[in-house]
Amino acid sequence: MSDNYQYELEFSVRDYECDLQGIVNNGVYLNYFEHARHTFLNSKNIDFAGLHAEGIDLVVSRIEIDYKFSLTSGDIFVVRLNIQKEGLLRLVFEEDIYKLPENKLVARAKVIGVGLKRGRPMRLDEIAGFKDLV
Amino acid sequence: MSDNYQYELEFSVRDYECDLQGIVNNGVYLNYFEHARHTFLNSKNIDFAGLHAEGIDLVVSRIEIDYKFSLTSGDIFVVRLNIQKEGLLRLVFEEDIYKLPENKLVARAKVIGVGLKRGRPMRLDEIAGFKDLV
Amino acid sequence: MSDNYQYELEFSVRDYECDLQGIVNNGVYLNYFEHARHTFLNSKNIDFAGLHAEGIDLVVSRIEIDYKFSLTSGDIFVVRLNIQKEGLLRLVFEEDIYKLPENKLVARAKVIGVGLKRGRPMRLDEIAGFKDLV
Amino acid sequence: MSDNYQYELEFSVRDYECDLQGIVNNGVYLNYFEHARHTFLNSKNIDFAGLHAEGIDLVVSRIEIDYKFSLTSGDIFVVRLNIQKEGLLRLVFEEDIYKLPENKLVARAKVIGVGLKRGRPMRLDEIAGFKDLV
Repeated sequence: MSDNYQYELEFSVRDYECDLQGIVNNGVYLNYFEHARHTFLNSKNIDFAGLHAEGIDLVVSRIEIDYKFSLTSGDIFVVRLNIQKEGLLRLVFEEDIYKLPENKLVARAKVIGVGLKRGRPMRLDEIAGFKDLV
Repeated sequence: MSDNYQYELEFSVRDYECDLQGIVNNGVYLNYFEHARHTFLNSKNIDFAGLHAEGIDLVVSRIEIDYKFSLTSGDIFVVRLNIQKEGLLRLVFEEDIYKLPENKLVARAKVIGVGLKRGRPMRLDEIAGFKDLV
Repeated sequence: MSDNYQYELEFSVRDYECDLQGIVNNGVYLNYFEHARHTFLNSKNIDFAGLHAEGIDLVVSRIEIDYKFSLTSGDIFVVRLNIQKEGLLRLVFEEDIYKLPENKLVARAKVIGVGLKRGRPMRLDEIAGFKDLV
Repeated sequence: MSDNYQYELEFSVRDYECDLQGIVNNGVYLNYFEHARHTFLNSKNIDFAGLHAEGIDLVVSRIEIDYKFSLTSGDIFVVRLNIQKEGLLRLVFEEDIYKLPENKLVARAKVIGVGLKRGRPMRLDEIAGFKDLV
């Protein structure tokens, strides 16, 4: 893993993720980014599904993505990410996709997440495990 | 609607549903079949999401699909369905997809559903609205 | 349709689009936005699949989305959009989702698209029908 | 890998694959089954995307699935498969999903595939690599 990232997860493109242009559909990248965030959170003992069962939902409030290059059938890639706090209420994930083995930058995203407790904004430091996260 | 079906719902293919072969991916047909079942159940005042909130889950136990012809970008089609009880525990949906306007048969499915109450099999006639369903 | 938009398309949430939080997954909004763009382009005689068959691909180079409010099972909504040229190479779509019937703003997106001809950037005015588009 | 299967591929459930019931949606299993088939074919030097580029499409003509048990957030599982020829025109895949580590049977499928050459049925032994497959 690059020194500049806190976490990475490797994927391979699945053929059903490609659309009629023969490339991974733009919406599928959000699946990749989400799965990387959730496995990262899990590695820090924060369980997205478990939180939901307690009435706490982590939801996305904003996403920016730059698509630089298209992934296609057979490609192997990693999502690498960093996380920062922004105030008491927001988490900012910077998530970059690199195609392997050449480490070519494919897409960059900035994803802002917030916590909702029974539907209302909550301080993220009320979530167990949060202090060790950032 | 054909006289031979209890319900039908019209769809159009969305480009993101097509895979790299330029045709609707085989898995997407299950989305079409599910959406038709749920809107049918809703028309009978049975709400899939509402039941889940009460601890009752309608789940699929078996699916058989014959794919006759491929849907592709720009196609308009209907899912037509019939429903029958099978004993006290099982619902059988027969769901057929026809491409419009020529009414060409595209796919036929038989979908068996069961009810779970907090994870255990339940008699379907315990579900409000069920008696009017079949 | 609002006077302030060039096009709108109505959708209803399909239950399979909701994730374990019971709300439409963040990635699914890109499906909605794409489908609205493609049906809009079609209404202007620009066919995404047909262009691909000729070696021309319209691809997304950047997306920004603000999620204001979550869609959930049973919701009806519209995607409303405007389109502008940006130089010779880029199309900018502004796409907003409103929940009906109350016209509540759910999400706003800015989607930048470019054209590729056999994989290389192309002037958009080389695409038949493009002049009538913007 | 069990002695009784020709191939297996490990997966983990991704949270976006779960629907509002908190379990993997029935349609997503077809994605798992397809990805296992394609990686198996790739291991035998048969490339689904490459064949499409040559005008040959492997398509599904029938699927039967029995869902025994639901996969959910955090689950690890394998798809195990066997393949047989049926005449000159059809491949039959038997694909079973087992949850790990307990090797609990989750779902069983039988998937029938055929080959199309420019849209017409073709003998599968015309496909390079096919002889080593079965």
